[in-house]
Amino acid sequence: MNKIIETVPNFSEGRDEAVIKQISDCFRNVDEVKLLDVKPDKDHNRTVVTAIGEPEPLKNCLYKAFEIAVEKIDLKKHKGEHPRMGAVDVVPFIPVRNSNMNECIELAKETAGVISAKYNLPIFLYEAAATSPDRQNLANIRKGEYEGWFEKIKDPKWKPDFGPSEVHPTAGASVFGAREYLIAFNVNLDTSDIKIADKIARAVRGSSGGLVNVKGMGVELSGRGIVQVSMNLVNYKKTPIFRVFEMVRLEAARYGVNVVGSELIGMAPMEALIQCADYYLRIEDFDIKQVIENNL
Amino acid sequence: MNKIIETVPNFSEGRDEAVIKQISDCFRNVDEVKLLDVKPDKDHNRTVVTAIGEPEPLKNCLYKAFEIAVEKIDLKKHKGEHPRMGAVDVVPFIPVRNSNMNECIELAKETAGVISAKYNLPIFLYEAAATSPDRQNLANIRKGEYEGWFEKIKDPKWKPDFGPSEVHPTAGASVFGAREYLIAFNVNLDTSDIKIADKIARAVRGSSGGLVNVKGMGVELSGRGIVQVSMNLVNYKKTPIFRVFEMVRLEAARYGVNVVGSELIGMAPMEALIQCADYYLRIEDFDIKQVIENNL
Repeated sequence: MNKIIETVPNFSEGRDEAVIKQISDCFRNVDEVKLLDVKPDKDHNRTVVTAIGEPEPLKNCLYKAFEIAVEKIDLKKHKGEHPRMGAVDVVPFIPVRNSNMNECIELAKETAGVISAKYNLPIFLYEAAATSPDRQNLANIRKGEYEGWFEKIKDPKWKPDFGPSEVHPTAGASVFGAREYLIAFNVNLDTSDIKIADKIARAVRGSSGGLVNVKGMGVELSGRGIVQVSMNLVNYKKTPIFRVFEMVRLEAARYGVNVVGSELIGMAPMEALIQCADYYLRIEDFDIKQVIENNL
Repeated sequence: MNKIIETVPNFSEGRDEAVIKQISDCFRNVDEVKLLDVKPDKDHNRTVVTAIGEPEPLKNCLYKAFEIAVEKIDLKKHKGEHPRMGAVDVVPFIPVRNSNMNECIELAKETAGVISAKYNLPIFLYEAAATSPDRQNLANIRKGEYEGWFEKIKDPKWKPDFGPSEVHPTAGASVFGAREYLIAFNVNLDTSDIKIADKIARAVRGSSGGLVNVKGMGVELSGRGIVQVSMNLVNYKKTPIFRVFEMVRLEAARYGVNVVGSELIGMAPMEALIQCADYYLRIEDFDIKQVIENNL
């Protein structure tokens, strides 16, 4: 696997194990594709699949999974806590290695075109693939959910990017897009004062004046008697982990508080961590090709 | 390529381009093997090949390269600045990913057994594969070189680990072994005083009381008017880059000198750099499997 793209399709079925298996099997034992995770949630009645691979085989896995989802999932009967508008609700493409955002946008458009034509399914493009600013945000598109979309789709403003201006009776409508890899990163502090964690979160996150591409909030780790700044880094290329970490550390110092550790939740691309080694070791003219594994 | 082992065979031919090509071609276009580098040196009359791969195909590449080397290289006529005792002088195996030292030792023994039998060639094991302390050091084994070995091999102390107690008339004798990956890492200082770099090198390197697995010396970067501590880290697993870097930084501070940058020469395994991200970000319970690329 030289070029690696990740896709994290969300399926509106989190209870029927046979269907979940049929869907996830589409990503199993495929050359140049690796299924990283399958997370069904009964309350949400939703399954999140994480797979990486070369673009061509990855597309084929998605096409197969769509076929099963459209056949087996009926949104008229679907109930769950998580908002949803489609049998396959969201399909993001993420550049992980030797690939870039433009490729992922093209991939979103190509697969959306094929699938909308095959199933007569309306598809919207979001995030980096969005065709207008009000379609960047997934929540904005999904507002009203499956049930509300029968009305919403009549508004010319909400003409789908692909497919008919008519909701699919059982499969609803889907949202395809491209985005950067999201890193869940938390920094733990040697205080039990949640107010300090909240203040640091406000200083560091973009929405309240801090770093763009950082979302964050204070969280109590009551079992340990400490607090943490819990963050999502939505573009580690532009706003790398080390810069966020150092900013949390500086803000904490202002309260006489120390960083006792951090948590990397789930996975991260190699590059996001190698960037940190490059920064802290002050390597001159570092090239990612100097990492042996990057030559495979 | 799941398991990655590196081999860096040294061939006693650095001038005849046709032979060098024939040898390096043995590692090209082979499934599950990647040729990383071919470095011929005319003065040394020696070519260093660097290849990584799964053990099985890597072995086959080596067998083919040996066939060509034994046929085309005649040590009776060989002259070069670099010490050598064999047509294929040294063959180290290095664990890079999902492999360990024991596997590399076994690989050294297995290939040495096959090759010594096929060509009636004496082979010695060195470094981690050595069968006695005085065979750990390559220079110790190679002392006397091809010409001197006709006498040296009569000493029972120097009975080969594989093959006959008789030097091969044209291919001499070879040295196989296993070792950790060697990282060439230099730290640059904001002073032109070479004495300070020398003092730091002595403090940091194992031979004069510092960290084991670190070799080092002071070097002038005259073009930039600064000096550096130039180091080889021979076991990054036990003595990681960040610890060496921080020790150089601490020693430099004692002279009021700052670290202006560092140099990573050539390649390094992903793990050696990820260790640094883990250390500086203080990640709790970090697992290398959290790196996406490690799941391929």
